[in-house]
Amino acid sequence: MTELKQDANCYEMQHQLAYYECTDSGHPSMSMVFSMMTMVSDAHSIALGLNHDVVTVTGGAWVVIGYEGHFAKEQPTFGDQIIIGTRAIAYNQFFALREFWLCDPEHRHDFVRLRAMFVMMNLTKRRLMRIPEQLITPFNSPLKKRLPRLETPTELGDDFTSQDYRVRYFDIDINHHVNNARYFDWLLDPLGADFLRRYQPETLKIRYEEEVQEGAMVESRYRIEHRSDQQLTTIHEIWSAGKCCTAAEISWQLLPKS
Amino acid sequence: MTELKQDANCYEMQHQLAYYECTDSGHPSMSMVFSMMTMVSDAHSIALGLNHDVVTVTGGAWVVIGYEGHFAKEQPTFGDQIIIGTRAIAYNQFFALREFWLCDPEHRHDFVRLRAMFVMMNLTKRRLMRIPEQLITPFNSPLKKRLPRLETPTELGDDFTSQDYRVRYFDIDINHHVNNARYFDWLLDPLGADFLRRYQPETLKIRYEEEVQEGAMVESRYRIEHRSDQQLTTIHEIWSAGKCCTAAEISWQLLPKS
Repeated sequence: MTELKQDANCYEMQHQLAYYECTDSGHPSMSMVFSMMTMVSDAHSIALGLNHDVVTVTGGAWVVIGYEGHFAKEQPTFGDQIIIGTRAIAYNQFFALREFWLCDPEHRHDFVRLRAMFVMMNLTKRRLMRIPEQLITPFNSPLKKRLPRLETPTELGDDFTSQDYRVRYFDIDINHHVNNARYFDWLLDPLGADFLRRYQPETLKIRYEEEVQEGAMVESRYRIEHRSDQQLTTIHEIWSAGKCCTAAEISWQLLPKS
Repeated sequence: MTELKQDANCYEMQHQLAYYECTDSGHPSMSMVFSMMTMVSDAHSIALGLNHDVVTVTGGAWVVIGYEGHFAKEQPTFGDQIIIGTRAIAYNQFFALREFWLCDPEHRHDFVRLRAMFVMMNLTKRRLMRIPEQLITPFNSPLKKRLPRLETPTELGDDFTSQDYRVRYFDIDINHHVNNARYFDWLLDPLGADFLRRYQPETLKIRYEEEVQEGAMVESRYRIEHRSDQQLTTIHEIWSAGKCCTAAEISWQLLPKS
């Protein structure tokens, strides 16, 4: 296995995929992939002395506002050792761009590679705040006037199917918010088992606009766009309390026969 | 840290608790505790050469029919290293009894200690089969004419509250069945966030009677019995397709103030 990268800018950890992190395909669920990314960026912060308490005293909290990226055809299987990595790419006063990857420890072939945009939310005023210097300089990433924007998902419009979900207690995470990763269960479940057994994600764009509240009902809307039998795209929106909380676009590839 | 026990009869693994295995209390969810137990018994089997293929050629599959056990007041917190362990206690022609524990690696204080009863299900005939010798003798546990029975949960009767759930695609696990651990989300979610933030499980008895099917609706019924403000008990049943699929009884203790 190659060495794990761990410095101010970059952090990797090794992880053995548990069966309960995988779907019936044997490969990790989207929800778990995003949970692992949160785990590694937390570990990165903690390794630099930026634990939860250090962040909290600034009155702020990191909030992810979107992801975009790519899933390889070959995905790891439960029991496999994988590397989960992250790197601080760049930041400005209000935004921080971070890269994430899942790869195999031997050849470092990517399973997943994504970019995420973070902002800092003032928890009392519930609005954006400037990123405090002491929370960003330790990552040793460049301060840039302009950051590349993440791509926007295609708009869903009025032609969609939908399914309702109730937010459950176990969707709430240690930060007392609905876990971002759980949105993927609501996004994907309505596509149905047949679809999800036939296709796997190839590219993803997701944008979180509003927070879903504890105990709320959510409506998961989607439309499937067949571009060919080999390749199709789904457009998604998660609505709650009369607002579009999340928009996403996923392109799919046929699962390799196992 | 003390050494991990790994021999024919007993198997332990070390695990670092991820934040996504924990509820907003910071401690592992019941669903994750039971997932970890499945993980360690799978690892135990594989370590003895009894992988999935070896089991499948016999036409059977291991099925857990019940658990009983105890949760300590002190529970591990995300980021903690824990030991997950299992031991084959005894078996007879049709039943195999197994012990599970979660403990801290340094002092070996138990966080959780449970017993589970397993049977072998013939997958084509969908009924109980004799445990094939080659699948049980490697564990080097005693063959006993009589095995201790697990305690039966108190009957729920007609006085209950209930909530409905739809089985989601992501509730299906690698064995193409509804994951046993997911039953705990249905069992506990109806108790509500206020209850689950105030109390934690102390003892548990659960009995799986019928399998919940993919795509089905389940009704999670329960009654709370206050024995005192310090101590109360909940009685549960999971119904689906007109049958009681699972019965459980949990006693609760006040969560220590954090």
